[in-house]
Amino acid sequence: MPKMNAFYAQSGGVTAVINATACGVIETARKYRSRIGKVYAGRNGIIGALTEDMIDTGRETAGSIAALRHTPGGAFGSARYKLKGLEENRAQYERLIEVFKAHDIGYFFYNGGNDSMDTAHKVSLISKRMGFPVTCLGIPKTVDNDLPVTDNCPGFGSVAKYVAVSTREAALDVLSMSKTSTKVFILEVMGRHAGWIAAAGGLAGTKPGDAPHIILFPEIPFDQTAFLKRVKESVTKYDYCVIVVSEGARFADGRFLAEAGTRDAFGHAQLGGVAPVVAHMVRDNLGYKFHYAIADYLQRSARHIASATDVRQAYAVGKEAVKMALAGHTAVMPVIIRVSDQPYRWKIGQAPLSKIANKEKMLPRRYISRDGFSITEACRRYLSPLIRGEDYPPYINGLPKYPSLKNVPVPKKLKAGFVV
Amino acid sequence: MPKMNAFYAQSGGVTAVINATACGVIETARKYRSRIGKVYAGRNGIIGALTEDMIDTGRETAGSIAALRHTPGGAFGSARYKLKGLEENRAQYERLIEVFKAHDIGYFFYNGGNDSMDTAHKVSLISKRMGFPVTCLGIPKTVDNDLPVTDNCPGFGSVAKYVAVSTREAALDVLSMSKTSTKVFILEVMGRHAGWIAAAGGLAGTKPGDAPHIILFPEIPFDQTAFLKRVKESVTKYDYCVIVVSEGARFADGRFLAEAGTRDAFGHAQLGGVAPVVAHMVRDNLGYKFHYAIADYLQRSARHIASATDVRQAYAVGKEAVKMALAGHTAVMPVIIRVSDQPYRWKIGQAPLSKIANKEKMLPRRYISRDGFSITEACRRYLSPLIRGEDYPPYINGLPKYPSLKNVPVPKKLKAGFVV
Repeated sequence: MPKMNAFYAQSGGVTAVINATACGVIETARKYRSRIGKVYAGRNGIIGALTEDMIDTGRETAGSIAALRHTPGGAFGSARYKLKGLEENRAQYERLIEVFKAHDIGYFFYNGGNDSMDTAHKVSLISKRMGFPVTCLGIPKTVDNDLPVTDNCPGFGSVAKYVAVSTREAALDVLSMSKTSTKVFILEVMGRHAGWIAAAGGLAGTKPGDAPHIILFPEIPFDQTAFLKRVKESVTKYDYCVIVVSEGARFADGRFLAEAGTRDAFGHAQLGGVAPVVAHMVRDNLGYKFHYAIADYLQRSARHIASATDVRQAYAVGKEAVKMALAGHTAVMPVIIRVSDQPYRWKIGQAPLSKIANKEKMLPRRYISRDGFSITEACRRYLSPLIRGEDYPPYINGLPKYPSLKNVPVPKKLKAGFVV
Repeated sequence: MPKMNAFYAQSGGVTAVINATACGVIETARKYRSRIGKVYAGRNGIIGALTEDMIDTGRETAGSIAALRHTPGGAFGSARYKLKGLEENRAQYERLIEVFKAHDIGYFFYNGGNDSMDTAHKVSLISKRMGFPVTCLGIPKTVDNDLPVTDNCPGFGSVAKYVAVSTREAALDVLSMSKTSTKVFILEVMGRHAGWIAAAGGLAGTKPGDAPHIILFPEIPFDQTAFLKRVKESVTKYDYCVIVVSEGARFADGRFLAEAGTRDAFGHAQLGGVAPVVAHMVRDNLGYKFHYAIADYLQRSARHIASATDVRQAYAVGKEAVKMALAGHTAVMPVIIRVSDQPYRWKIGQAPLSKIANKEKMLPRRYISRDGFSITEACRRYLSPLIRGEDYPPYINGLPKYPSLKNVPVPKKLKAGFVV
């Protein structure tokens, strides 16, 4: 293969470590200058390719690229934009190849979740059919930890650590106050479909009676009676109750608890998430004073408390994706393989994109306690290594130093624009 | 004064560093064993004194006491419990003195906010009148930073750092997503009466265009038209808008924004805080996609990202309170005096409790920009040193090590109980 340029794009919700993956891709590509020319990044993800709005990462210093390793968010912009089936969206795929061709792009690194793996897979197919074969690598990224095959997903370990640390800290606060004030504290966390993040809250406690006393998983149909009974037991026994609830918690009929909220005078659903619904339920039925927090973006951008394991793995999948591409592999994704739990050892393997695309890995039932309100030892063994190690960013004047890139545009070559 | 025991109690909402103050008190008292006997702590604050439910801190090892310095929450339990005026509540004050007398307690260290300073002041008065003069020291603690005289309050620096760091991190996330997804992000922070914590969010940005683009302070009457105009300007210009809103934000007539939320079918006020109200407003008027986070207890328990300056000051006020007591001062509180901004230098001074009790220090108008939506340079100069330095707790297996104390009870000596 002659020397070709590479295109890297970030996709979907960003994480505390997606830039560490970008760092792995760019630093590794720079080591193989004889084979990979420029590394272009999509401004706002794949949209940058479609609209020929690309960033020349070659204009960034080695220091700026190195700093990506400790900077949260998506340095080039990400996008929630899904390319649909080849037949309905042929024009989009063709445009993509046209842009790649115009810029001598022979490598496509797509950093995202299941949808993105599907897109990368399709681009590999259509590029071949169009006679301009592009080496397509998926690179895993998702706080939801729901990609199959890979043992875990970069991005998850850091949000898991944030949730476990925050639960432990808030629990100490609530316990201090429980005699005269707050008895019940609810922390709402992400995970619309899978309960991996909520499960991570379970790491906060290590012995019976420790918080969290209840975890509400999307995988377990919500049973109000059993839930309230458990809240009451916890308050009676320990004087407080800490609840970690997944935004995806739902009733047996599939309705989200978050949608069970009250409606305003115009019939609009209440805007709060699931935490206020659960809080309402506790107050109305048991009368306990409560507080709740909604971590939202704070949990997935909290680079200040990232897991060192996660950072290393995020970098590694970026680095290995480049190596796989150079070794001639296409339509594959680097995966994390767990070699052993204790001591935790892992290595990077490889899986075909077709096995990853559009599949979701739920929290297995054996990771959830029989009563459905906590995690099992097996779950703890799985989760624990993923949050290990601290990897603090540098600070200046009390604040983390998160530099932004210059993001210099690549001059356009195509006459036609493209509307996304 | 013969050798007497000391009583230490935590009061009101706890902070990430109130235990650092406890550490300062206990370690210092232990250095003066010839003059201070035992240090007892109130289980659940002042309630522990009233009910004669005290903890013997002498049963804790030096290592356990040292670990308080990095452990959030209130190690002995705190209480939201206000002793009212001497006349209405004479029995309570008399009971307190009775307990102190029974346990040879000659020193009372009360670690709290304005209400607690009032109580400590009254105890000093009544103990004298009752012929059992107790040396009463107030020790400042409040995330709200609203105590007068002292330049700042231990507890505030750490919540300020948490809010500034979180705002900076979440802003990078939102900016990455703004092209196709979230345009507006709202972070709700504490501060029911004073906007100090919201102001700290302003430290996240350092140049024009940086987040946060809007801060909503309790001190500035909310103007919906001006607010929406500013949101629109920010999204138009920067493609996103980050808003930090104080839970105490209010309309010109004094109503809290949080109370302007929708009501359910039973007429209950919506349970969400101010963030969903602001989000609703943005969506209904401008149609932007939003996300919001409610930091709640996470912000004040986040010892993992405590300010090193705050930890040092929290320890120092505890230490100096003991020294002041030994020097014969009573009805006073150690205060932090700022010697210079740059380099930041501070020392501990002393103020009479009568000057502190029941007074609130609002964010001065000159700390808020003319348009009411951001902080001024003067505010930045004031806040910046308070969040400086990191003081990470030790970690085991990816989680901060926050040991709990044995909290061995002091045997009761009084026959009569007391119902609070």
